[in-house]
Amino acid sequence: MPLKATVNCDMGEGFSLYRMGDDVSLMKTIHLANIACGFHASDFSVMNKTVQLAKSNGVLVGAHPSLPDLQGFGRREMAIEPEELEACFLYQVGALSAFLLKHELGLNHLKPHGAVYGQTSRSMDLARAVVGVAKTYGVAFMGLAGTCHQKACEELGVKFIAEWFADMQYSSEGKLLITKVHDPVSIMEVETRVERMLSTGLVTTLGGQLPIGESVSEISICVHSDTPGSVEIATTVKHLVDKSNATAGFTAT
Amino acid sequence: MPLKATVNCDMGEGFSLYRMGDDVSLMKTIHLANIACGFHASDFSVMNKTVQLAKSNGVLVGAHPSLPDLQGFGRREMAIEPEELEACFLYQVGALSAFLLKHELGLNHLKPHGAVYGQTSRSMDLARAVVGVAKTYGVAFMGLAGTCHQKACEELGVKFIAEWFADMQYSSEGKLLITKVHDPVSIMEVETRVERMLSTGLVTTLGGQLPIGESVSEISICVHSDTPGSVEIATTVKHLVDKSNATAGFTAT
Amino acid sequence: MPLKATVNCDMGEGFSLYRMGDDVSLMKTIHLANIACGFHASDFSVMNKTVQLAKSNGVLVGAHPSLPDLQGFGRREMAIEPEELEACFLYQVGALSAFLLKHELGLNHLKPHGAVYGQTSRSMDLARAVVGVAKTYGVAFMGLAGTCHQKACEELGVKFIAEWFADMQYSSEGKLLITKVHDPVSIMEVETRVERMLSTGLVTTLGGQLPIGESVSEISICVHSDTPGSVEIATTVKHLVDKSNATAGFTAT
Amino acid sequence: MPLKATVNCDMGEGFSLYRMGDDVSLMKTIHLANIACGFHASDFSVMNKTVQLAKSNGVLVGAHPSLPDLQGFGRREMAIEPEELEACFLYQVGALSAFLLKHELGLNHLKPHGAVYGQTSRSMDLARAVVGVAKTYGVAFMGLAGTCHQKACEELGVKFIAEWFADMQYSSEGKLLITKVHDPVSIMEVETRVERMLSTGLVTTLGGQLPIGESVSEISICVHSDTPGSVEIATTVKHLVDKSNATAGFTAT
Repeated sequence: MPLKATVNCDMGEGFSLYRMGDDVSLMKTIHLANIACGFHASDFSVMNKTVQLAKSNGVLVGAHPSLPDLQGFGRREMAIEPEELEACFLYQVGALSAFLLKHELGLNHLKPHGAVYGQTSRSMDLARAVVGVAKTYGVAFMGLAGTCHQKACEELGVKFIAEWFADMQYSSEGKLLITKVHDPVSIMEVETRVERMLSTGLVTTLGGQLPIGESVSEISICVHSDTPGSVEIATTVKHLVDKSNATAGFTAT
Repeated sequence: MPLKATVNCDMGEGFSLYRMGDDVSLMKTIHLANIACGFHASDFSVMNKTVQLAKSNGVLVGAHPSLPDLQGFGRREMAIEPEELEACFLYQVGALSAFLLKHELGLNHLKPHGAVYGQTSRSMDLARAVVGVAKTYGVAFMGLAGTCHQKACEELGVKFIAEWFADMQYSSEGKLLITKVHDPVSIMEVETRVERMLSTGLVTTLGGQLPIGESVSEISICVHSDTPGSVEIATTVKHLVDKSNATAGFTAT
Repeated sequence: MPLKATVNCDMGEGFSLYRMGDDVSLMKTIHLANIACGFHASDFSVMNKTVQLAKSNGVLVGAHPSLPDLQGFGRREMAIEPEELEACFLYQVGALSAFLLKHELGLNHLKPHGAVYGQTSRSMDLARAVVGVAKTYGVAFMGLAGTCHQKACEELGVKFIAEWFADMQYSSEGKLLITKVHDPVSIMEVETRVERMLSTGLVTTLGGQLPIGESVSEISICVHSDTPGSVEIATTVKHLVDKSNATAGFTAT
Repeated sequence: MPLKATVNCDMGEGFSLYRMGDDVSLMKTIHLANIACGFHASDFSVMNKTVQLAKSNGVLVGAHPSLPDLQGFGRREMAIEPEELEACFLYQVGALSAFLLKHELGLNHLKPHGAVYGQTSRSMDLARAVVGVAKTYGVAFMGLAGTCHQKACEELGVKFIAEWFADMQYSSEGKLLITKVHDPVSIMEVETRVERMLSTGLVTTLGGQLPIGESVSEISICVHSDTPGSVEIATTVKHLVDKSNATAGFTAT
């Protein structure tokens, strides 16, 4: 049975005068934009422009909240209590919601950024805190299949979107191998992996193939804006996803 | 004709481990709480607790956004473009709205904080920017009668609440005299001023009395939490206001 | 052999309009002030005033740098690389040094604040990074005896001051038991502990007594400004310390 | 009589993962680097790298402090008291001095950044505050000739370096015309202006030529890193400056 799929990208990660990634080009090649909320990147002016850009491209908007660590781009793990983290995420999702209200868009999902993405995938208490924010907003939660992300979603009755990375390596046990510098992957290899995922739900690992996870009904393929050739990769992946969704009768957005 | 009136207070102005004002006591003596949104004071944890405190006291919540100046407590005027200021306020009001959603409260009004309160009272462009945020949220705007605050509300069709200060001096021309250290005012003097305002709409000035303004149908009396004796003053004022509203058939909250 | 001793206190932990602790009173009862540098508390205006206050009381000034976490008061552990932490501390110590230059004081020592105090006591790499900053400035390092703090000082040739807490509990193994709320300790009990420490170098633990550590020649007794009765405790402790130093022929400052 | 001259550039204006300007190339084409101190741009890691880069290129380092406005890149004027501004600048210059100490460099000068550059050029009280920081550090102050910058330097006995912009327009009255987008200027035109300045001290204005100012003995030509072709412009200007200094027997650094 084919999986419903989308392509997502982290967006709006500029700040002040600083630019990060080619949002204008990438926004044309994705279904879902995870928009930074000012704690690892972005500010009120950047958020306003990014929401407008998503709207003009018909891209669905998700919140991309972070630990409060602008100087570290949200990439440093931090000891934080679940209640504190829930409030931290509420603040950021709320801030984004104002720009959605202004531009008459709805919120589609929530995906944690950076270090707290990992922390919440490993701790049920932290996962419940952030999935609880998605529940408060009545939106889906995007995270790693088979981790606390998915378990907390099931527990709290929140729709889960399994994120999968077509341009990164997975260990033989199915664990995402996070690297500071991404090894380049050929477009052909990405195509092969995406087609396999879409038709069979299998993750290509270093040791073969593994199912993306039990009870996963929808996936989203992340495109990294800082990978060289990201626009081309995104275009290719989106084409495959749109074809697969159309064949199966799914609507991406 | 008596004026509908409320008592308001700036609330939730702690930050991190820091405390500011006796929120627990003051929340019992007011109708409206203007809650700081993290830009001049407060943070996500403080906001969460402050919204809960307002709810448990049946106090209506307004947003109290500021210029982005935590270190200066939002009291330093800053050159800012209207579009930038609108986004700045949207971010903060949105952030607050998340805690209201979480605790199932609505937003009642918006009142600018500190330096930008003055700046928006003098510039139509800036006033339109912030009143526009109140309009986006469908709530009232609280500000100074007879200034750009009121004009922008009339222009944009936003309900205007005239704020009045029972414990501060007004010049003979009706201009609020802002002082770093408030001269102490006797409770009796405050009572006299409040009763006059409620029954006649007249501001007590250094030179006599002046109408609070044309087309003002609702006022809110601000209690400063940093004034010595603020809880006693607030209690007295609230009693007078409740009596006046009851007589006239108004509901404060 | 008696130990040279001082009394130290964390100072200048206000921020913006916020106050923290009774610096004016406490500054009269200590030898060493650990002054916050703007990353967990303080700002340029508070630092300026705090350095002036230390000078007018003849108190020696130490830098009290933190992880970059103002909202968390530097109390949340954070994943940080040694090189990053060194730069983080350099920035803060440098900032403090400007106020010392302005007010013609020297820097006496460096003591890490909060979460990073613990992190650097457990990791040699992090300890070397922060002790290295003390070395760059040619000043002593204050930390926990028998931990990476002391080892890194010995390795890098930096003078080590062992900090000891007269109002907190130590486990039978000599480990400091950190509690969110301090159990009240009687002045008499504090006196007993301090006299024992000063005359014998023994730490009072839950299971008896343990030497504060090998090769420790100087200690500093920390007074917590947020403990109720801190001024009285500090006064008592300072009196004992001054008497002990005088007898042994030590000069505290 | 020819003027001693240097070429300066604002440097180290990245932050977190963000990059700004081509520091590596520009550092080869200048005499003086004005290094951001974390309040409008930069952070402790960026500062550390920028000071190292300056050292390895034999470039003299100046502090480039700003109003506390990271989100606005220090470009928004802000109401600030002289005492507050002095402390604000002390903090930043001190922070930079730590990296200079670490890398065994001295501080050469201080130049205010952005909005406060203009504010201090128009207010003697603010000018005295920031020139006073240069005096505390015993370094030169770089600013606009004929304004409060120069007057405060004369008053306080601080060496003044007149900054001049070869790629910007000056009004007939000699006032710098600040534009958001710089009109492109041909290299030939820049050469003409620089040669005229170096040999005669005359500023090319829209209405003709004006002396750069009385009592000006040293100038510094600013190269904007965000101007297209900035490396080529800087290279050309530095060549002219080095030739002129050599002829007159001046040493730039």
